[in-house]
Amino acid sequence: MAYEHMCPRYKWTMDLLGKRWTGLILRALVDRPRRFAQIASYIGDISDRLLSERLKELEEVGVIERIVHADRPVAVEYVLTPKGADLKGIIEAVQKWADSWVDVEQDTSIR
Amino acid sequence: MAYEHMCPRYKWTMDLLGKRWTGLILRALVDRPRRFAQIASYIGDISDRLLSERLKELEEVGVIERIVHADRPVAVEYVLTPKGADLKGIIEAVQKWADSWVDVEQDTSIR
Repeated sequence: MAYEHMCPRYKWTMDLLGKRWTGLILRALVDRPRRFAQIASYIGDISDRLLSERLKELEEVGVIERIVHADRPVAVEYVLTPKGADLKGIIEAVQKWADSWVDVEQDTSIR
Repeated sequence: MAYEHMCPRYKWTMDLLGKRWTGLILRALVDRPRRFAQIASYIGDISDRLLSERLKELEEVGVIERIVHADRPVAVEYVLTPKGADLKGIIEAVQKWADSWVDVEQDTSIR
């Protein structure tokens, strides 16, 4: 991998993943589809307005898809597209590093 | 990997990496130490104030180290610590996804 110059594709991806809540939303969806309220409760302290905004952004870039089940009442689920599912490698790498280096008891990191 | 509940270590890590510029600074340092001005020119449009702030944050969490070479003039380099070097897996995963899915020509992403 060439690190001599900043890669605009890398920058674009970091801008996407770096948005507040986005990395958490993706983790919520990495193992299975979830409904809006399920994602919200998974994350904990996100407002409905912000979650809705982030989901729309992820839909626009083709990372997640909104699936409407025509039941009564109508059920809406969010699911990763193949492009979104391919983010799993990143999510796993983040989790692996976090497990090795972050000490949550002290709310700080390990040196 | 258990995705049933949000992991606070994952959240902490995403908060760290998600800060604007942080992912780019780490990419700048992943292959070799660089001086302040080299990191700035690598990234392109970051202000000195913000770069300095981000470097300080990364130093505080033990991800980078500031090395002072006692030459004349004194040279300061920033280098990843073992903890920072271990972020390489994340950086590579981001680059891999970006290469697969981001179309920089169109300044947009591939579906």
